[in-house]
Amino acid sequence: MAITHATGYAIADPKDYLNFKLTKYELEPLEDDRVTVAVEVCGVCGSDHHTISGGWGPFATKFVVTGHEVVGKVVEVGSKVTQFKVGQRVGVGAQVGSCHECKACKSGLENYCVQPVHGYNTLWYDGAEHQGGYSTHVRAQELFVFPIPEKLKSVEVASMLCGGITVFSPLVRNGIGAGKKVGVVGLGGLGHYAVLFGAALGAEVTVFSRSDAKKADALAMGAKRFVATTPGFEKDLKRDLDLIIVTASSAQLPLDELLSTLDIEKKLVFVGMPETGLSNVRSQTLSDNAVSIASSHLGNRSEMLRMLDLAAEKDVKPWITVMPMKDAAKAIKAVEDNSVRYRSVLTQDIEA
Amino acid sequence: MAITHATGYAIADPKDYLNFKLTKYELEPLEDDRVTVAVEVCGVCGSDHHTISGGWGPFATKFVVTGHEVVGKVVEVGSKVTQFKVGQRVGVGAQVGSCHECKACKSGLENYCVQPVHGYNTLWYDGAEHQGGYSTHVRAQELFVFPIPEKLKSVEVASMLCGGITVFSPLVRNGIGAGKKVGVVGLGGLGHYAVLFGAALGAEVTVFSRSDAKKADALAMGAKRFVATTPGFEKDLKRDLDLIIVTASSAQLPLDELLSTLDIEKKLVFVGMPETGLSNVRSQTLSDNAVSIASSHLGNRSEMLRMLDLAAEKDVKPWITVMPMKDAAKAIKAVEDNSVRYRSVLTQDIEA
Repeated sequence: MAITHATGYAIADPKDYLNFKLTKYELEPLEDDRVTVAVEVCGVCGSDHHTISGGWGPFATKFVVTGHEVVGKVVEVGSKVTQFKVGQRVGVGAQVGSCHECKACKSGLENYCVQPVHGYNTLWYDGAEHQGGYSTHVRAQELFVFPIPEKLKSVEVASMLCGGITVFSPLVRNGIGAGKKVGVVGLGGLGHYAVLFGAALGAEVTVFSRSDAKKADALAMGAKRFVATTPGFEKDLKRDLDLIIVTASSAQLPLDELLSTLDIEKKLVFVGMPETGLSNVRSQTLSDNAVSIASSHLGNRSEMLRMLDLAAEKDVKPWITVMPMKDAAKAIKAVEDNSVRYRSVLTQDIEA
Repeated sequence: MAITHATGYAIADPKDYLNFKLTKYELEPLEDDRVTVAVEVCGVCGSDHHTISGGWGPFATKFVVTGHEVVGKVVEVGSKVTQFKVGQRVGVGAQVGSCHECKACKSGLENYCVQPVHGYNTLWYDGAEHQGGYSTHVRAQELFVFPIPEKLKSVEVASMLCGGITVFSPLVRNGIGAGKKVGVVGLGGLGHYAVLFGAALGAEVTVFSRSDAKKADALAMGAKRFVATTPGFEKDLKRDLDLIIVTASSAQLPLDELLSTLDIEKKLVFVGMPETGLSNVRSQTLSDNAVSIASSHLGNRSEMLRMLDLAAEKDVKPWITVMPMKDAAKAIKAVEDNSVRYRSVLTQDIEA
C-alpha cells in the first residue's frame, strides 16, 4: 500500500524550539525519480539547532521536522528509480533534490545547484513541503540516496552524511592525502570528522583549539599535533600547512595568525556556518602568502560514495552518543551548550 | 669610476609627506649579483603614498625615497651578473632582493620570499638601507632587473613594473585568457591595468564601479561590459565570472553581491592594500558557490617577462600623465585625491 504520511517530532515555533511535538503530516509526492526511506536512525546536526531556533531566519514550512543524517530502509521506489530496491539499507543527507538543469548540476556539482531542495525547512519545485528525519519516513531524489557499505553500522554512518561529507569534500577537493598537512580549527562535531577523515586519507593533521582541554581526544582521533591558540602559537608554523578547515565559529578566531600557517596559495575553508559574518581580515595577511579564505557546501555524490568506502576500508569510527528520538530536545540542548562529544544520533522510537 | 652615491627626492617625516627634499645618500654595496641602474623614468604608485604618509606604519629607513617602477640604463654590474650589460635598458619593480633559500624562492615564487627586500623603505640582509627610484640610481639583484622589449616606450612601461604585474600575475595564475570572463572592481591605476591586460589576454572584461562616471574610459580600454554597483546590480550576473580582481579599497564594497557573480570555486582577489581590514563577509555567501577571497603580491620573474612580451605584442598602452620628477608632490597629491587618470610617471630631472 502506498505510503502517504509520515509522523515526526516537529517544532512549530522558533521561540519554543525545544518543544518537539509528535506530528503526522502528508509526505511530498513519490514522483518517478524519488525513493521513500523508513528512518532507522538520524544524526543531530548544528544546522538543526540553527534552523529551529530561527538563527538562520524564519521557517519556510508550516512546522519543521529537522534531521538530515538519515539511515534507513528503502520502502518505496519511483517508477524510474534504477539504483535502489525495497529493503535496501541507504543513507540520505542534507540535500534531497536538485534541478538537474543548472551549470552546477550538469557538471556533477549538484551540491551547488542554484535551486537545491534541502533536508528540511524547504519546498520542492511544485511547492510541496519536505520534512526531515526526526520522523518515520523521508523522501528524496535517487541522486541523493546512498547505498551504505555493509561493514558500517547505521548509528556510526548517520552523521557522516552531513557532518562527515561537509569536511570530506574540501579535504579531497584540495588534494589532501599522504604527504600533506591539514589544520583543523575547532574540535566539535565537524572538527572531529575532519581529524578522522584527514588521518584516514593519510595526511598529517594538526588541531587548533582555544585550550588544551581536548588535546587527548584530538590525538586519540588521529591528530599528530595539537596547538592551543595562545598568543604566538603561529610562530613555529609559518607556511607549514596545505589546507586549514575551520569548523569553529568565527567571532574569536585568530584569523591573521592562522592564515600565516598556510603555504603559498593554499586555502582556509570555513565549513561552520556562523550566524554572523566573518571577522575582519587584513588584506596584507592574505597577500603575504597569497592564501585564500573560502567556504564549501556539503559534497557531491561521487565524494559521498568515496567517503563511505574510505570509512569502511579504514574503519573510521565517529565518536557518538546514541539516544532514542524522543530525546531530540536533549540532543539539541547539548548542541547549544557545546557539550556534545562529538555527535549525537537518534534511534527510531515512533510507532508507524 | 664606481658609483657610491645617489641623489633622490626624499621624505624625512610622515607628518610632512609632501615635502620632498633633494637628498644625497650612499647606495648599498654593489655585490656580485647586483646591478646599478641610472633612473630615466619612475612611475608613481599608491604604495608610495601609503608609505610616506605613514599609513603602513613607521619608516624602516632614516628617510624614504619612494619609487618602485623604474626604467633606466644599466651603469654597473656585479662580478657574477650574467644577463645584463652596461648601457642596456632595463626595468626594476617593487622588489629588489630575495633570500634565494626559502621554499618560495626555491620554487620560483621569489615574490613570496619570506624575507623580501622591497623597492624602498627596506633593509638588505646586512642592514644596508635601500632607497627607491625618485632618484638618480637604484641597485637591485639581477633576478629583479628586467630587459625591456625595444618596442615599448620607457614612460609607458614604467608603471607596468608594479601596477601592471600586480594584476597580471593573478590574471594568469587563475587561468584568464580567451573564453574566460574577468570582473575588475574599481577603475584606478591598478584597475585600468586589469582591463588592459585582461583584454590583451583575450578575456571578456566586466568593470564594476560605483557610478557610471568612468564607463566611457573602461570601454575604451577594452572592457566589454560596465556595471555600476547600484542595488540589484548582481541579479543578472549570477555565477557569470571566472575571476574578480578587486582594485578598490574594501570599506564600501558590496562584497556579498560581487561574490555571487563568481562561478563555482572561483576567486575574488584583492590587489589593493587598504590600510584597514576587509569588511565582513557572510560565510553563507562563500559557501553558496564555494568561492574564495584571496590576495596576491606582485608576480614572479617569468610572469613579468611574459607581461612585457604581451605588452609589446598586443601594443598595450597605459593611460598615463607624465611630469618631471620635481613634481613628485603633485603626483602624490593626485593619488591621495584619487584624480589620477590612470597612472603618473616621473621623468628624470636631477643633475647627476
